[in-house]
Amino acid sequence: MKLLQCYVDNIITTALMEDINYIDASADNLIPEEHKSSVYYVAKDTGIVCGIEIAKRVFDLAGGDVDFEILIKDGTKVNKGDVIARMNGSTLTLLKGERTALNILQHMSGIATATNKCVEQVTGTKASVTDTRKTLPGLRALQKYAVTVGGGKNHRFNLSDCAMLKDNHIDAYGGITPAVKALREKIGHTVKIEVEVRTLDELREALDNKVEIIMLDNMSYDDMKQAVEITAGRALLEASGNVTVENIRTVAETGVDIISLGALTHSVRCFDISMKINK
Amino acid sequence: MKLLQCYVDNIITTALMEDINYIDASADNLIPEEHKSSVYYVAKDTGIVCGIEIAKRVFDLAGGDVDFEILIKDGTKVNKGDVIARMNGSTLTLLKGERTALNILQHMSGIATATNKCVEQVTGTKASVTDTRKTLPGLRALQKYAVTVGGGKNHRFNLSDCAMLKDNHIDAYGGITPAVKALREKIGHTVKIEVEVRTLDELREALDNKVEIIMLDNMSYDDMKQAVEITAGRALLEASGNVTVENIRTVAETGVDIISLGALTHSVRCFDISMKINK
Amino acid sequence: MKLLQCYVDNIITTALMEDINYIDASADNLIPEEHKSSVYYVAKDTGIVCGIEIAKRVFDLAGGDVDFEILIKDGTKVNKGDVIARMNGSTLTLLKGERTALNILQHMSGIATATNKCVEQVTGTKASVTDTRKTLPGLRALQKYAVTVGGGKNHRFNLSDCAMLKDNHIDAYGGITPAVKALREKIGHTVKIEVEVRTLDELREALDNKVEIIMLDNMSYDDMKQAVEITAGRALLEASGNVTVENIRTVAETGVDIISLGALTHSVRCFDISMKINK
Amino acid sequence: MKLLQCYVDNIITTALMEDINYIDASADNLIPEEHKSSVYYVAKDTGIVCGIEIAKRVFDLAGGDVDFEILIKDGTKVNKGDVIARMNGSTLTLLKGERTALNILQHMSGIATATNKCVEQVTGTKASVTDTRKTLPGLRALQKYAVTVGGGKNHRFNLSDCAMLKDNHIDAYGGITPAVKALREKIGHTVKIEVEVRTLDELREALDNKVEIIMLDNMSYDDMKQAVEITAGRALLEASGNVTVENIRTVAETGVDIISLGALTHSVRCFDISMKINK
Amino acid sequence: MKLLQCYVDNIITTALMEDINYIDASADNLIPEEHKSSVYYVAKDTGIVCGIEIAKRVFDLAGGDVDFEILIKDGTKVNKGDVIARMNGSTLTLLKGERTALNILQHMSGIATATNKCVEQVTGTKASVTDTRKTLPGLRALQKYAVTVGGGKNHRFNLSDCAMLKDNHIDAYGGITPAVKALREKIGHTVKIEVEVRTLDELREALDNKVEIIMLDNMSYDDMKQAVEITAGRALLEASGNVTVENIRTVAETGVDIISLGALTHSVRCFDISMKINK
Amino acid sequence: MKLLQCYVDNIITTALMEDINYIDASADNLIPEEHKSSVYYVAKDTGIVCGIEIAKRVFDLAGGDVDFEILIKDGTKVNKGDVIARMNGSTLTLLKGERTALNILQHMSGIATATNKCVEQVTGTKASVTDTRKTLPGLRALQKYAVTVGGGKNHRFNLSDCAMLKDNHIDAYGGITPAVKALREKIGHTVKIEVEVRTLDELREALDNKVEIIMLDNMSYDDMKQAVEITAGRALLEASGNVTVENIRTVAETGVDIISLGALTHSVRCFDISMKINK
Repeated sequence: MKLLQCYVDNIITTALMEDINYIDASADNLIPEEHKSSVYYVAKDTGIVCGIEIAKRVFDLAGGDVDFEILIKDGTKVNKGDVIARMNGSTLTLLKGERTALNILQHMSGIATATNKCVEQVTGTKASVTDTRKTLPGLRALQKYAVTVGGGKNHRFNLSDCAMLKDNHIDAYGGITPAVKALREKIGHTVKIEVEVRTLDELREALDNKVEIIMLDNMSYDDMKQAVEITAGRALLEASGNVTVENIRTVAETGVDIISLGALTHSVRCFDISMKINK
Repeated sequence: MKLLQCYVDNIITTALMEDINYIDASADNLIPEEHKSSVYYVAKDTGIVCGIEIAKRVFDLAGGDVDFEILIKDGTKVNKGDVIARMNGSTLTLLKGERTALNILQHMSGIATATNKCVEQVTGTKASVTDTRKTLPGLRALQKYAVTVGGGKNHRFNLSDCAMLKDNHIDAYGGITPAVKALREKIGHTVKIEVEVRTLDELREALDNKVEIIMLDNMSYDDMKQAVEITAGRALLEASGNVTVENIRTVAETGVDIISLGALTHSVRCFDISMKINK
Repeated sequence: MKLLQCYVDNIITTALMEDINYIDASADNLIPEEHKSSVYYVAKDTGIVCGIEIAKRVFDLAGGDVDFEILIKDGTKVNKGDVIARMNGSTLTLLKGERTALNILQHMSGIATATNKCVEQVTGTKASVTDTRKTLPGLRALQKYAVTVGGGKNHRFNLSDCAMLKDNHIDAYGGITPAVKALREKIGHTVKIEVEVRTLDELREALDNKVEIIMLDNMSYDDMKQAVEITAGRALLEASGNVTVENIRTVAETGVDIISLGALTHSVRCFDISMKINK
Repeated sequence: MKLLQCYVDNIITTALMEDINYIDASADNLIPEEHKSSVYYVAKDTGIVCGIEIAKRVFDLAGGDVDFEILIKDGTKVNKGDVIARMNGSTLTLLKGERTALNILQHMSGIATATNKCVEQVTGTKASVTDTRKTLPGLRALQKYAVTVGGGKNHRFNLSDCAMLKDNHIDAYGGITPAVKALREKIGHTVKIEVEVRTLDELREALDNKVEIIMLDNMSYDDMKQAVEITAGRALLEASGNVTVENIRTVAETGVDIISLGALTHSVRCFDISMKINK
Repeated sequence: MKLLQCYVDNIITTALMEDINYIDASADNLIPEEHKSSVYYVAKDTGIVCGIEIAKRVFDLAGGDVDFEILIKDGTKVNKGDVIARMNGSTLTLLKGERTALNILQHMSGIATATNKCVEQVTGTKASVTDTRKTLPGLRALQKYAVTVGGGKNHRFNLSDCAMLKDNHIDAYGGITPAVKALREKIGHTVKIEVEVRTLDELREALDNKVEIIMLDNMSYDDMKQAVEITAGRALLEASGNVTVENIRTVAETGVDIISLGALTHSVRCFDISMKINK
Repeated sequence: MKLLQCYVDNIITTALMEDINYIDASADNLIPEEHKSSVYYVAKDTGIVCGIEIAKRVFDLAGGDVDFEILIKDGTKVNKGDVIARMNGSTLTLLKGERTALNILQHMSGIATATNKCVEQVTGTKASVTDTRKTLPGLRALQKYAVTVGGGKNHRFNLSDCAMLKDNHIDAYGGITPAVKALREKIGHTVKIEVEVRTLDELREALDNKVEIIMLDNMSYDDMKQAVEITAGRALLEASGNVTVENIRTVAETGVDIISLGALTHSVRCFDISMKINK
């Protein structure tokens, strides 16, 4: 899986302009154009590498003339001290691209690492771990890609590609049944309908309407278990709300199909990677 | 302090296009254009509100026809249950803008809240709390603004506006003294020089060169104290590396002038705010 | 249903820059700024109006100071001679925006009109009429919106929001069964799988794999009828290939669920609307 | 003749982002990065190829690693079954770029083909076939280029580069004579003046004012013939309005210099080209 | 004559982002949002005002809440001390927009003023003063507009809208006659042909080919006079090369139709205007 | 020192689109794609070359296939007749890029040349020559880079990176002392404070507040000399207002540290360079 280069280049260009603006006041004034350095990325913790191809691309756009050797590919688990990549070439480019490359690499690796911890927790259950639309402006594709690299799956990308009925839609239409009926008349045949329910009665009404996915919003573990029984495979069940790496196993053991976590993308702890110089 | 509207609008537009793409498959198909709703933002925790003007602007760009009343301004501390804003108007606009507005508001409030916790810790010392260049692509100004709203100060915005000498610059020039001398020949008179030092000897050499700012990189508390004594006000001292809200008080008590934390912007925990419907 | 204003504005701005470039050599040199005109749009044929809100917006962005009264809303059928909208105001703005507004309005109305002719043909059958990804660069959302205004439905918007297996995917994976199995492991739970089949045997294999949608690629009417019988509601059947307004009824009568036509968007005949001056 | 690469790249990038958005849900999940394919373009009808260099460029921007051999250059007539180009390389890139490349190639070839049919009709007369400003938003240069590839010529590109006086301009100025006089005072020496006339009297007035071009708006064939006699080479005469491939020969035989057709760009029938796999 | 608002807004936005970047470090930190000021623009010299509507727009985009009263419109001659506009409103907006507005206003007024000096010199002759394509990146429309405001006319806007044959084109084609003949076969009927000549023999050849415009490249005054006689109105004659405000009268008196000066746009002396505070 | 490639490419792309728009009406219609030429840049005057790498890049983006050999690097003084670069390759690319490349190269070289004349005047004094924020929209980085190439230094790049207190700020705060005090509370530690003073009393007040830089606004030579004595190295002194190459030596001899000139960037006289063909 590869993000579209023009999308990636646009993010990198924005970040470089933001970080450099006009010139690098120290490097541009001190480092001769022909000066070369040899550096490497080293992991400072245990986690999943993500974004290494993008980090490599940063140096092309920051001035080029850098040979960037990827040692660890996206999706691989590293431990403290593991060398992820080696770069040889123009010191000026290395200094100008350093911060932009690390900011992206550490953010994406942070997401992949957090996702992977959740995925490991649910091993052996039928549940898959997904993201949400709680992403940062302009970074949704980067962030959703990182979730898949961590072993998670992606929830809908945007409001166009899956129709989710929440209580405000349902209230405005006078109930789940008329709302689903009205929606089916209008949406394209490739769009699934997901209904958010709070009670088992709402669940039953949603099932009667044969919707493809049902979100169990902040339900108790007991209610989730009952929901799984009632549903009996007639729809996909998604657990959502207050799920953490600590309680995700318990949620998964209720038998739900999908567990979605906003925190994977809205509260990212960056994964610590350093750029070190070979002396 | 206000961010430039065209910068803010550009971020919002990108986020809306990303979140809506083509249409809102549920709202556009179900909610009549003339349908109105009345909703409000409520804090789910204790923290500092930040980005409320931007959240308001989201609804203008997502379709308009919403009256957005700000009850709590940027920089104010709220507690769980506090109502931050009330919105009345087009249900379609409210639904289309909901996620984009909250994603931005919660991220910025998360930064302001974390900054504020650090600022409170150092009360009574001479230290100020600052951010770094460890920000997310395209979001630096939003993030740096949030740091100031939380009571912190901003470190340099980009590589152009302050010259920082790190060991790779210094190595390439054969020492602090020749590097600073060379740099002074070239940089404009508005640009300060900051030198990163690891030992007290390097500190003394930097002081001899009359640089404006000296970063104490991962020094022990004892070394920091000695550095403060040696410096005696001849330069600003910045502590950097492994500072957290837990240890920041101890760092501040060494007498340093500035404490910079990458985590304020690279590892943001979003501040929880909900949009609720008045029924 | 309303397209996002920032998307629409971007298209209009591009078109105005393209059409005006620097100045309108005749109007800017001849028409005084305070000169007013009164004009109207009149249909030259029978068809469905589409894009009238966008035409209105063109004049805001082309200079403003025009009162634009919409008489016929998107989706309404008009006959030759029907007045669609009246505009009063700045002659300069009216002249500068005239061509851009008509180009968009006539293109979108052309799509809605052609779609509607197909929709009328299939009345009483269970088939719905949909578009494809055969759209023009940068105009996909405009074109897909016009299809819905004409009474059609939208096929997938892009490659992310529905997984379609064509023979090249299937070949690369060694058959429908392993390909569907592999795909299910990876895609998110909101993404449907559609498989393109050429024979009834392939259809049966796709049904065995419980895919949501099956495209019958260029099948004979007889094969389509058999496919409907074999499927018996276990999947949505989409007829595709060489469908025209002349033969669409026959296709629909085979009992398929969806009929997709590339021509709706790749071979658009513009719907003729004139801007006339009230003298 | 070659379009500016940055203009072309911008259109391609927009189209790819629109078509792929985030990932190709089937190809990115099924096709290994190292998988190679060999495919070719084959004409499904008789027509003029146009846009083949742009189609080639699509694959560079969609992921690269494709060897694209152009067999038929822009402007060449092909028949059903002719192979236009061969592509070998990354299956992922071929699948991701397929639709975008064909959408552009088929649209441009459709324009070139339709233009060429008109050009063939007027062979032996002095008339040249031209486009108008009735183009699609953002695509004017692509479309006008295709007209020249089909053997036509381009009318003015935008409102800046030729001053056209229509009845609203003339009315606002009180007649052709004062309007032309006023315009001559203001426009640059490189800008020609074209006047739209409806009667032979208006034609005579325009000729008296020595305008370079006169458009005969929806005139009868007899009036056009008379117009040609009256003009006697003193200005270029352009026939416009309701011209089709069926009647263009008759129009040309009146002796006019230019025949402009909006339909060449506003009602394009795409030229059918398929991408086939070598098995 | 009015530039397209979206073009102007794009330039202003770029300039504001460039000038403010993140915040105005002094104003944003010192001036309360509700603080108001009253200021005015005063001319420091004699010249032609140009760009005042654009200056006004800068304050809308820099924060708004400013009442901007235009006292002197574009094209009016002012003397030292004349008040050009008065602004009342938000001090923050006035400070943030001040430099951007003045930079544009002074540049455009500088061009209009220099053009006007040339135009005054040629009064009574038949010559008109024009610009060239020697403009600054991204600013061509602003600069060309300013030339017309100063009383000059515009030469071609870009390479598409007039075909100029210089010696490299002619050499590549083996002479003026074959080059003009080949060009006529290809260009649209709205595009004039201009030929650059160095000798009277070349002039005669160009005239024989009935080209619309002939540029006399760096000819002596005597040659220009002879050229005027030889031409006898059969083409427009453009004098070009080393023309200054000092010698333009002499050039005009040779009888040429057009005199083009690159310096009008490539070597602009800004017109001095100050923003003063009412105390 | 090197500008960021994506910034430079963006300017070049804008300029090429502006200059070419659709096609080069003469070159695209006359010059065969395979035609090659050999040309060179020659200086027409004495000055400093600046922007040669950017000129080179123009031909890459205008069509490529040109071998561009730089003979004179940025910052080198040339005399009339010196050959600056040689280009061999596609005639089409050379013609399409010619004007854009020269427009940028001549503008930047003009700035470097004017700056250098000022720098030469102040040789032997302690003064350095700097630019201001009086730059052209979108071109600030190009222009500031050219100032450094000419031997000058850069004043602040934008309003974020240095806090300048002018009389309107000071008035709004009730004097220099309270304004500086308030500002220090808020700005980051990397931002210097510069105060603009008109009298020696204001200078003393600014010195008492230990601001880093003091601008002497339009002071007499005598006052400047006294200011230097009073200051005695406690702050950097910047002379500003009405400085020209004629009087800059006198200003420098007062002993000030910095002399800033708006004219370096707001009133640029382009440096004359021609592109000649090798025959």
